[in-house]
Amino acid sequence: MLFSFTFYRIIWIPMKIALAQLNYCIGDFERNTDKIVEAALHAQSEGADLVVFSELAVCGYFPFDCLEFSDFLGKCAHALDVIATRCHDIAVLVGCPVPNTNEGQKPLYNAAVLLDHGQRQVFCKKHIGANPLFDERKYFQPADDDRLLEWGGHRIAVMVGDDLRNQGPDPILMENRMDALVGMQPDLVIALAASAFDYTMPRRRCDILRQTVLKHELPLVMVNQVGAHSHLIFDGGSMAFASNGHVDTALPFFEEAVRLVDTDTLCFFRTAEDRLEIPEKMALIHDALVTGVHDYFHKMGFKDAVIGLSGGLDSALVTYFAVQALGKEHVRVVLLPSQFSTDHSVKDAVDLAKKLDIVYDTVPIKPIYDSFMASLQPVFAGRPFDVTEENLQARIRGVILMAVSNKFGNVLLNTSNKSEAAVGYGTLYGDMCGGLSVIGDVYKTEAYALARYINKEEEIIPWNTITKAPSAELRPDQKDTDSLPEYDLLDRILFQYIEEACSAEEIIAQGFDEATVRRVIRMVNRNEFKRKQVAPILRVSPRAFGNERVLPIVAKL
Amino acid sequence: MLFSFTFYRIIWIPMKIALAQLNYCIGDFERNTDKIVEAALHAQSEGADLVVFSELAVCGYFPFDCLEFSDFLGKCAHALDVIATRCHDIAVLVGCPVPNTNEGQKPLYNAAVLLDHGQRQVFCKKHIGANPLFDERKYFQPADDDRLLEWGGHRIAVMVGDDLRNQGPDPILMENRMDALVGMQPDLVIALAASAFDYTMPRRRCDILRQTVLKHELPLVMVNQVGAHSHLIFDGGSMAFASNGHVDTALPFFEEAVRLVDTDTLCFFRTAEDRLEIPEKMALIHDALVTGVHDYFHKMGFKDAVIGLSGGLDSALVTYFAVQALGKEHVRVVLLPSQFSTDHSVKDAVDLAKKLDIVYDTVPIKPIYDSFMASLQPVFAGRPFDVTEENLQARIRGVILMAVSNKFGNVLLNTSNKSEAAVGYGTLYGDMCGGLSVIGDVYKTEAYALARYINKEEEIIPWNTITKAPSAELRPDQKDTDSLPEYDLLDRILFQYIEEACSAEEIIAQGFDEATVRRVIRMVNRNEFKRKQVAPILRVSPRAFGNERVLPIVAKL
Repeated sequence: MLFSFTFYRIIWIPMKIALAQLNYCIGDFERNTDKIVEAALHAQSEGADLVVFSELAVCGYFPFDCLEFSDFLGKCAHALDVIATRCHDIAVLVGCPVPNTNEGQKPLYNAAVLLDHGQRQVFCKKHIGANPLFDERKYFQPADDDRLLEWGGHRIAVMVGDDLRNQGPDPILMENRMDALVGMQPDLVIALAASAFDYTMPRRRCDILRQTVLKHELPLVMVNQVGAHSHLIFDGGSMAFASNGHVDTALPFFEEAVRLVDTDTLCFFRTAEDRLEIPEKMALIHDALVTGVHDYFHKMGFKDAVIGLSGGLDSALVTYFAVQALGKEHVRVVLLPSQFSTDHSVKDAVDLAKKLDIVYDTVPIKPIYDSFMASLQPVFAGRPFDVTEENLQARIRGVILMAVSNKFGNVLLNTSNKSEAAVGYGTLYGDMCGGLSVIGDVYKTEAYALARYINKEEEIIPWNTITKAPSAELRPDQKDTDSLPEYDLLDRILFQYIEEACSAEEIIAQGFDEATVRRVIRMVNRNEFKRKQVAPILRVSPRAFGNERVLPIVAKL
Repeated sequence: MLFSFTFYRIIWIPMKIALAQLNYCIGDFERNTDKIVEAALHAQSEGADLVVFSELAVCGYFPFDCLEFSDFLGKCAHALDVIATRCHDIAVLVGCPVPNTNEGQKPLYNAAVLLDHGQRQVFCKKHIGANPLFDERKYFQPADDDRLLEWGGHRIAVMVGDDLRNQGPDPILMENRMDALVGMQPDLVIALAASAFDYTMPRRRCDILRQTVLKHELPLVMVNQVGAHSHLIFDGGSMAFASNGHVDTALPFFEEAVRLVDTDTLCFFRTAEDRLEIPEKMALIHDALVTGVHDYFHKMGFKDAVIGLSGGLDSALVTYFAVQALGKEHVRVVLLPSQFSTDHSVKDAVDLAKKLDIVYDTVPIKPIYDSFMASLQPVFAGRPFDVTEENLQARIRGVILMAVSNKFGNVLLNTSNKSEAAVGYGTLYGDMCGGLSVIGDVYKTEAYALARYINKEEEIIPWNTITKAPSAELRPDQKDTDSLPEYDLLDRILFQYIEEACSAEEIIAQGFDEATVRRVIRMVNRNEFKRKQVAPILRVSPRAFGNERVLPIVAKL
């Protein structure tokens, strides 16, 4: 074994591989193809022998039921032809769905296709796992063969996505395909990935890959995509490992990039130190949210956003992210004070709008509120003020914001945070309106940390917004803590229940007050129906509301 | 082979099996357990030796991520203990999740558990398929063994759910577990199912089961659950086949029932004629929708509904279903005329309210509309009337309906139909409001057929509502056909695109006008974002919006 290992090393031929980390749009074949060709030609001009793109790069990851459209696959095949025709002098390894003609099987493979001087080789993904974000098993047949790519004197193990996992929610992901391939004596591993961001993922992804590198003492190149599609954000972070387990080359997070690596360096010189630098959690979340907002608008063909600015922390953060992502000339805000709004709220909102230099309008809602109450008076017949009137204010704001959205073509951004979404502290069709939820996967305590991160060099979010007690201002002197535990406590319980999937008993056993835990869990469970009607939430945590946490609405929990 | 087959027939001992088709509530262990015990004791009093319940009956099907809660499984185990303790003199075969302790595998099996005089036997489901409605693979390990239940002198093949499929979207469902078990020479098949309703399913389900019966010449008993959980409706329709392929005993659709069958009859007397009667499509959809509305309210603990009644067909139908499901004293409607509402609309709405004998209020929206326009005037600055003002009217109605909902505790029912939902002909946070979409899986042309079915004996839906041209009445003399093709044409194109998953080219090749097809498909694709924010839609078709049709929001299609 040792001998043969050495033998392959002896005939090693140095090769330059380009890692092309690009931002694709699902179904936009023309744009994706142009990007791929342009990056390939650039890599060629830099001296690359082979350029590697990410999983399903040709069509964008993940296309869901588009994979079932009969013309979609034809467009994929055509895109491969175009790439092959336009890239003469460099070999291209690119992710693309390819047909499977075997009877009684899924009609597609998730493949890596090598295009090389008119020749093609196809390597199909084997570990089609149960990822709750992308149900690949609905579409793809797992590969039933294992073989290496022999190219340029090299024996390359080509992996797609979860082929390289060693762990995960699905037992299938406990296997690593390298264990099957290593007997064929590869000298290099190339992985095409589409690994979605959460704030734990840059570190976890590196750790998972490094296990494979160290176990088999083989250099490994991994290319991920970058950019967002509605709720899902991809952070890039492609990298090349030397065979000693150190990261030799790390591509940036949240940016397109093409970088060359030299297989000589990866294998023989054994990079002395790890070159992967992972930003801190708040920096990652910050950049992810900017990417998420930017790509939602640009890929949908929208330019302009509108936000209801209350003077509170959440709408301030969303406005900041909109300006970062779209530019100040593309963001307008509306202040919607009611009879219960405090002076400091209006002032904090105006301060932020001025600081960010954006258009703001003020539309007091009291006349409209009075008009609703007058019309409803015969129906309500003297019943007292209750949550109805609170929700009414929130819904009037929603209607005004949607009217501004319709009239000017600005997409309304939702400002709910994860703590509110969890316990249902929000009004359906009111403050829960919007085309995209920007901070719906950010707990309130994380929102504070994010604001402090944004303010680290200068005051952008008014400090008063950060330090005052949070309030919905829907009745006199209201505070969030009238209805909810302090956010610090609430968020710790929610984290245990949602991210850690602990039961009430397990959380109580950690020392939390039993009544509070049961009350919080009851609120979470009772408000599942609200979370079914919200906009896509930009996902930044390992367990966002949406696809990953699927609960019945009608149930006794 | 023939010899041994005959041998088992010789020692046949007649047995009475009770099919218990019940309506469970997910997670309501106490209620489910009581129902199971009560049905078992009733069956015992009727002379049954064995009573069979449906798949996951103990916890209700399908519990989604509740299966990951650590206390949920404990409650399942406890429920089994209670059933075993309370049912002394009858054997019980009941669906329940059971733990799997094998390392590196999913932690649960989807099992049928036999409780018999203190003894237990567990039979696990093997075909854990890719059903888009219930991702069982997320939770359950497939059984890795095949064996028979030997009980009362019988050799019984116990099947759970898709174990008996011969076809389906997932290749795993192309296999039928009977092909593996038949070599062990069973003399009877018992299937525990949880098979969700669509209008094609009663027939398809019977056909699938009959294939197994005829192929192996074995009697077969199938027990399904009945009742609804938010969007999913289960129709029951449990049945027992004689070994010649005829249905000997058919349980009703959409009703709880316990029926006894005699294995002697099933095997030897060979039922002369098929006793399964499947109601026509509109009768099935009618009963499904009544069940869906009824169970949503009763299982959520709600009693009362509110509907915005426009004088059009959709809201008339929804009001009718609410009255059927909840009783007239639990339904109130609000008429919300604007300056664009016609006299006949108001009259048709009042006629229906009087016919159904329900409370109705009238709240004209013009004063509120004027108040919004006055407040927005400084922002809108003289821009002309456009879709903004149309949407504004729809949203004012939504706000009023939600205010009535909040004040009186009546759940708002949504009135959108499938044609509108498909092309986005509706206002988010306006007419798309509501806790449950009643006819969101019913095309407009089907809505007409449903109304005629309802009126078959007397005029309940005013005929004028059925015969007049549909209009949203959001500007003067508006007709739906100003924006959409005629519904008859639109629905045929939508059916090809959604249910049949045809491409534009394939639909055009059927003879439809190219420009119309492309326009309709563009509308469907552009409005995916709206469909992500709607209430659960009662599913009655084989391809409802929601889990079954998953498309990216951000994509170029």
